[in-house]
Amino acid sequence: MKIGVILSGNGVYDGSEIHEAVFTLLAIEESGAEAVCYAPDIEQHHVVNHITGEEMNETRNVLIESARIARGNIKPLSEFKSDNVDALAIPGGFGAAKNLTKWAFSGPDGEILDDVRRAINEIIAAGKPLAGMCMGPTVIAKALEGSGIKSELTVGTTEETSPYDIKAISEGMEKTGATAVMKSVKEILIDEKNKIVTAPCYMMEASITEVRNNIKDTVKKLVELV
Amino acid sequence: MKIGVILSGNGVYDGSEIHEAVFTLLAIEESGAEAVCYAPDIEQHHVVNHITGEEMNETRNVLIESARIARGNIKPLSEFKSDNVDALAIPGGFGAAKNLTKWAFSGPDGEILDDVRRAINEIIAAGKPLAGMCMGPTVIAKALEGSGIKSELTVGTTEETSPYDIKAISEGMEKTGATAVMKSVKEILIDEKNKIVTAPCYMMEASITEVRNNIKDTVKKLVELV
Repeated sequence: MKIGVILSGNGVYDGSEIHEAVFTLLAIEESGAEAVCYAPDIEQHHVVNHITGEEMNETRNVLIESARIARGNIKPLSEFKSDNVDALAIPGGFGAAKNLTKWAFSGPDGEILDDVRRAINEIIAAGKPLAGMCMGPTVIAKALEGSGIKSELTVGTTEETSPYDIKAISEGMEKTGATAVMKSVKEILIDEKNKIVTAPCYMMEASITEVRNNIKDTVKKLVELV
Repeated sequence: MKIGVILSGNGVYDGSEIHEAVFTLLAIEESGAEAVCYAPDIEQHHVVNHITGEEMNETRNVLIESARIARGNIKPLSEFKSDNVDALAIPGGFGAAKNLTKWAFSGPDGEILDDVRRAINEIIAAGKPLAGMCMGPTVIAKALEGSGIKSELTVGTTEETSPYDIKAISEGMEKTGATAVMKSVKEILIDEKNKIVTAPCYMMEASITEVRNNIKDTVKKLVELV
């Protein structure tokens, strides 16, 4: 069993959240499946100094930086075909909302990369399961906008502490036509009808162990849905 | 309980091996301890494209890149004091042998950063435990060279498949005065006398799950030795 993983760079503030991406690769292998990493071959939106939070005067490529997490074992997202995988997973990090979509700047009105939209819609059309972690669900929401598919997605809950505005992001997902559901970092959301599993991970104030477990549960369910 | 972690960048070919670094942070929390990340505030030896393996015409800072793995929660290694932690861990990746030492270019004859040598010797002098994973043990060997301490260290075994020259690296460690011991990725080496735990991780041909388990065992033992 092969599970595609869409990476969006290498670092929480301008790419894939590294812990989430690594735990996704680990959980896939633990579930008896093989991870196949993809990333778009484009320039990052920007490069952020992860100590100061300030923008750096550099350009980096999303595919090349993502390769650091994948230890070089990665393909351009343009080569993605739903026939080649049994499921698809999208970890979080601001890269999901800066490189895959522009949600970080324009919410649900931002653009989405054609290859990302295509990959997600092909997986859904093939009846294969899909997982979104952290900001990953906003990518799914944006990809399915206008498709007529009523997905159920979570990015967290307003009832516990989060560093982000869960209410605004949830409302944004609803604007695309999805139903936003509140879930804590100890829970995952299963949209059985559309075979979509989503989980809050670092969208909530969470420890590294909680994120590890949240992703383990997500991937385990993803594999069950294959 | 606090465990210092010395990072050396962000990516296997020019920095810390990302999976090993993340699994170290996870295992520390799982063991009930808190990770305190450090990295030297210096330029990386070079920047490597992790798809092609080729050098890129860029300069990056080891502390700033390491901060991506630590989600911004990191200090300059110059601020390290053995009083502030109960143990110290050094994950692998070529950064250990390119940025912390120059082992990748000159074996045991290469230089070691003063702050790295100081941190390791202070921990040993304080009777606190120390862990080295993957190429981490070569940093320990180099730091203890000339100290009179006879450590026992492993970077893997010549009896199983490795992408690296385990024999040459082991001989290099012996040249510094250490005793090199053969261990598979399913084993850890415990130098009880000096409270040093070492493990091969990705020095051997290993799956991500094997590396996760190898590091979990290493950190568990490290915490027991505190």
